[in-house]
Amino acid sequence: MVSRTDRSSSSTSKAVTSSPSTSSLSSAASSPSVSSSSSSSSVSAAGMTAVSTGPLTGSRKTWLVGADPDLRVPMREIVLTTGDTVVVYDTSGPYTDPGVTIDVRRGLPATRDSWIAQRGDTAPDERRTVPGTGASGPGTLGSGTPGSGTPGSGPLGLGGTDLDGRVRVPRRAVPGRPSITQLGYARRGQITREMEFVALREGLPVETVRAEIAAGRAVLPANVNHPESEPMAIGRAFLVKINANLGNSAVTSSIEEEVEKMVWATRWGADTVMDLSTGSDIALTREWIIRNAPVPVGTVPIYQALEKVGGRPEKLSWEVYRDTVIEQCEQGVDYMTVHAGVLLRYVPLTARRRTGIVSRGGSILASWCLAHHEENFLYTHFAELCEIFAAYDVTFSLGDGLRPGSIADANDEAQLAELATLGELTQVAWEHDVQVMIEGPGHVPMNKIEENVQLQRELCHDAPFYTLGPLTTDIAPGYDHITSAIGAAMIGWAGTAMLCYVTPKEHLGLPDRDDVKAGVIAYKIAAHAADLAKGHPGAQAWDDALSDARFEFRWADQFHLALDPDTARAFHDETLPAPAAKSAHFCSMCGPHFCSMKISHQVRAHAGGDGLDPAGHGADPAGDEAVTAGLREKAAEFNAAGNRIYLPVANS
Amino acid sequence: MVSRTDRSSSSTSKAVTSSPSTSSLSSAASSPSVSSSSSSSSVSAAGMTAVSTGPLTGSRKTWLVGADPDLRVPMREIVLTTGDTVVVYDTSGPYTDPGVTIDVRRGLPATRDSWIAQRGDTAPDERRTVPGTGASGPGTLGSGTPGSGTPGSGPLGLGGTDLDGRVRVPRRAVPGRPSITQLGYARRGQITREMEFVALREGLPVETVRAEIAAGRAVLPANVNHPESEPMAIGRAFLVKINANLGNSAVTSSIEEEVEKMVWATRWGADTVMDLSTGSDIALTREWIIRNAPVPVGTVPIYQALEKVGGRPEKLSWEVYRDTVIEQCEQGVDYMTVHAGVLLRYVPLTARRRTGIVSRGGSILASWCLAHHEENFLYTHFAELCEIFAAYDVTFSLGDGLRPGSIADANDEAQLAELATLGELTQVAWEHDVQVMIEGPGHVPMNKIEENVQLQRELCHDAPFYTLGPLTTDIAPGYDHITSAIGAAMIGWAGTAMLCYVTPKEHLGLPDRDDVKAGVIAYKIAAHAADLAKGHPGAQAWDDALSDARFEFRWADQFHLALDPDTARAFHDETLPAPAAKSAHFCSMCGPHFCSMKISHQVRAHAGGDGLDPAGHGADPAGDEAVTAGLREKAAEFNAAGNRIYLPVANS
Repeated sequence: MVSRTDRSSSSTSKAVTSSPSTSSLSSAASSPSVSSSSSSSSVSAAGMTAVSTGPLTGSRKTWLVGADPDLRVPMREIVLTTGDTVVVYDTSGPYTDPGVTIDVRRGLPATRDSWIAQRGDTAPDERRTVPGTGASGPGTLGSGTPGSGTPGSGPLGLGGTDLDGRVRVPRRAVPGRPSITQLGYARRGQITREMEFVALREGLPVETVRAEIAAGRAVLPANVNHPESEPMAIGRAFLVKINANLGNSAVTSSIEEEVEKMVWATRWGADTVMDLSTGSDIALTREWIIRNAPVPVGTVPIYQALEKVGGRPEKLSWEVYRDTVIEQCEQGVDYMTVHAGVLLRYVPLTARRRTGIVSRGGSILASWCLAHHEENFLYTHFAELCEIFAAYDVTFSLGDGLRPGSIADANDEAQLAELATLGELTQVAWEHDVQVMIEGPGHVPMNKIEENVQLQRELCHDAPFYTLGPLTTDIAPGYDHITSAIGAAMIGWAGTAMLCYVTPKEHLGLPDRDDVKAGVIAYKIAAHAADLAKGHPGAQAWDDALSDARFEFRWADQFHLALDPDTARAFHDETLPAPAAKSAHFCSMCGPHFCSMKISHQVRAHAGGDGLDPAGHGADPAGDEAVTAGLREKAAEFNAAGNRIYLPVANS
Repeated sequence: MVSRTDRSSSSTSKAVTSSPSTSSLSSAASSPSVSSSSSSSSVSAAGMTAVSTGPLTGSRKTWLVGADPDLRVPMREIVLTTGDTVVVYDTSGPYTDPGVTIDVRRGLPATRDSWIAQRGDTAPDERRTVPGTGASGPGTLGSGTPGSGTPGSGPLGLGGTDLDGRVRVPRRAVPGRPSITQLGYARRGQITREMEFVALREGLPVETVRAEIAAGRAVLPANVNHPESEPMAIGRAFLVKINANLGNSAVTSSIEEEVEKMVWATRWGADTVMDLSTGSDIALTREWIIRNAPVPVGTVPIYQALEKVGGRPEKLSWEVYRDTVIEQCEQGVDYMTVHAGVLLRYVPLTARRRTGIVSRGGSILASWCLAHHEENFLYTHFAELCEIFAAYDVTFSLGDGLRPGSIADANDEAQLAELATLGELTQVAWEHDVQVMIEGPGHVPMNKIEENVQLQRELCHDAPFYTLGPLTTDIAPGYDHITSAIGAAMIGWAGTAMLCYVTPKEHLGLPDRDDVKAGVIAYKIAAHAADLAKGHPGAQAWDDALSDARFEFRWADQFHLALDPDTARAFHDETLPAPAAKSAHFCSMCGPHFCSMKISHQVRAHAGGDGLDPAGHGADPAGDEAVTAGLREKAAEFNAAGNRIYLPVANS
């Protein structure tokens, strides 16, 4: 949600913002001198892990408060030099709140714990402790074991206890009670705290949130074992969301890097993250990420399952997969990609493709199906999987294992056959009150994007669509954040609920910190462009505030309102570093004599008589006087027209 | 045009390529070991100016030859490790041909000189020498004089002669003869060499080229005084083109930098360049650029006219403007932006806008109109301007001086009122056989893009549309090459003929070399995505070639087929620099065990029986044997279906 307080109309402003005392900046609401320092790195007490903290340049944390003062929704408040503020959606969590002490070994505050406990329909499963702690119950750790990565530095420490000596015991549904999923509550007409949070966050009535979830048109991914997350919704009625993929591979990357990538990605706007780690320490990496993630975390459990069987797809089994899923449910994964639509009979459809199967999960399952000449075990055991997901409120992200990997393969039979099966599975999941979203491509030329969304809606009964890009051409490796931002913006406008980012390293290598930021910013652009095109209420207020700052030469405000304030400022300062340039009525692009906005102000002063100073810039006093006299008549005419200064288009 | 030669079908290949002896690489057609060096800088004989030369990594210059062997169209040939080649459209001119010696002081070869002379309908105007030489006739130099920039280093030297002692005398139409414009020839059914060149270049029948130009649906900007340019066409029936803006401002930049920016921009794919210089040495900078430009050059003459009157819009007059235009026509400017649609009565329509007038030319003319309370002199003298343009075959780019500068102002009355006037002026220009294209916005949310194109087509009688972006959101300064690439791709698909690039520095400062490249690559992506969506014949061959290379792990080919081979390779090598990684069947993104394409090959081998090696990667021999047996039946079934391996979508 974007809202804007204006000097002249702050009392009618839609957003009620509150700055509680936990924020060190909260008392500075009337001061425009917000700290402009860049992010700092926080070193934990033990000096082991540094993550990016501190507010974005020119912004501070604020909270929306609803009817219940205990429910506080964190937002980002951009403070302008005029004294106005612009409040925008904030995914960055406590990391941008100077009032919170960050210690990645302890993890984030478990805000949702009390909400979940109060509902009384889940209970700690004392037979099990969390995986990755060295004290597991029937669950197994998989190939990722603590100690091989960063010994003793996991967020819970070794030995099954956290730093405060508590044992973390996973929570699950109490048997024999109504379902504990947000879908279940919504269908039964029950408003949860999570729904209230989302309603405030999106600026929508809570009944809209409930109804969208109840209809399956939106999901609210919120595993009861991830109480650290700030609730958010994914659906076409809401702001378009973006996901950032993280994850080490066998070649490079470490656990610490992955946690910082998560913090970094959410800092710039990632609404969810997926941990796609495939290397060692899968379980431990995930534990670190979840305990520190203010956003829902997604995974692809088949990756960990494959590690457990030595990387050989044909050795996979339902049992290995099931145990892996249960471990991840207990850890707190909010949504899981499940490639249950890769059916044996669809695999041959890919044989003549230009680029075969490009989904990792899809290729693993296709390989399994062919090796055994049996139906995909995820398909045959799907109902059982639904029962597991329902016990923790894990959301399905039904994977498109047969998505196209090239323009040539877009919207082909393999893709659409799988999509129809995902629609069938959606209804099975819904029978279990389990939330579902549907993954989509991939590589799609612009002319086939809308068709894709239409087919997804029809075949999958309006379940939210979650697409990777799509890339609109194959010829620009190194720039696929751009080839895909084009497709992402268009598919978002067409109704896709969440856009999985693509970084400049796509097809070439593992993204680093800069690539993650480049991908997130490109996708925030795509998502916001889609929100504008959809006419989402309030979306344009952000653009308007920035355009006002631009037109009024408030350079600092223009930087602070930018998706990336630091880069905007740095680009400006490359050619005009002097402080005086920050109030100059031009930039180096056109120089002082050719600034259209500067001239435009003079035109406006002449034509509209709006009180702006018409003097200055090369105007000779005599000439100006003549102009003023000659235009007084026109000015009077405009004023006589009241607020309707636009004239009908003349026919010449 | 993109064409592809294939080992298995090279004899039926659409493109006939020829490698004349002037290319040092031409005899290496069968060798895949093309030089992979990056661009080198060419230092001229006098050691004064360096520009980027040498082929793109992995490419070489080739030529398409038509019925007339003297007409040779340069193309870029990408040589693959398989021995196949992919031939793509090439804007880089002789700079990428190692067989040509570049000397920016002499300029490029004047290939079109003989074509123009042979038509016998133009003649040198002996009364005038070119501006910028210090020996001008009635024309004046304006405020840009040689000597203040780089004394004695202009491409023609001082004193009105070039380095070979020749005086360059501008050419113009012989009075009393049929019009000498490409539009005039096309309407009279005459095929020019320029049209033949374009037909070969675009892979279209020459009659199509003639017909599109005759109908006004395309332009072929080709001033008779810019014989160095390689003919190209701008129209919806052709490949989507992109323009790169160059130009110093009063704050920064030098002449040498601007020439190199032009060479650099065309190297990466700019189809035209606009010289928007506003600082000193306007005329000299332009002379350097034109003499060295292999692409059409556009300008906005009002900028130079304003310099002549000391930067004071109210001092402008038709006479000052007219003389400026004539100078530029004589220099060889191919198209000029003329803001003749900024009418006095439209100016008040902008007074209540969020961002007023953001076109520099528009704001200058609005200022003039208001200062004098008279109608825009470009509008009242438009017929006279047409006569001047007709004498040199200069193309109108009718400027959108009232284009929106923010999302809030998109498609408003001011913009659409001006557009209607541009439509009226289009018909006036066509009465004089003068070519016309129409400039468009700017800032437009996605949902208003198609409406924009529809209105432009209707109001401007199908004259080619040439848009700046448009930016699809205002909130990302520093990333406006991306916000606008989204809009550019969409508006290109909707029929816009040329896309004016936007760099990451837009709104913030003057673009440098890196920004120019970033802008050009983003717009090549947008233009190619549009070509794909429009179904342009041959466009997808490039994507297919790259996807094949990707699927077959031909890393070097994937890099060389990329829009930017150097960046693709550098990104890959960041994590896997070893030479062996160039033939590895994985990259660092997923690592060796999780490469979907690798697994997909195994799947394909099993499912399709296409002869690829199914062994390797974790397959146990016994299991493999069982698989092979179990699948033989399926394989037989696929083969029985002939070439139709795709099966109908099953209903489950």
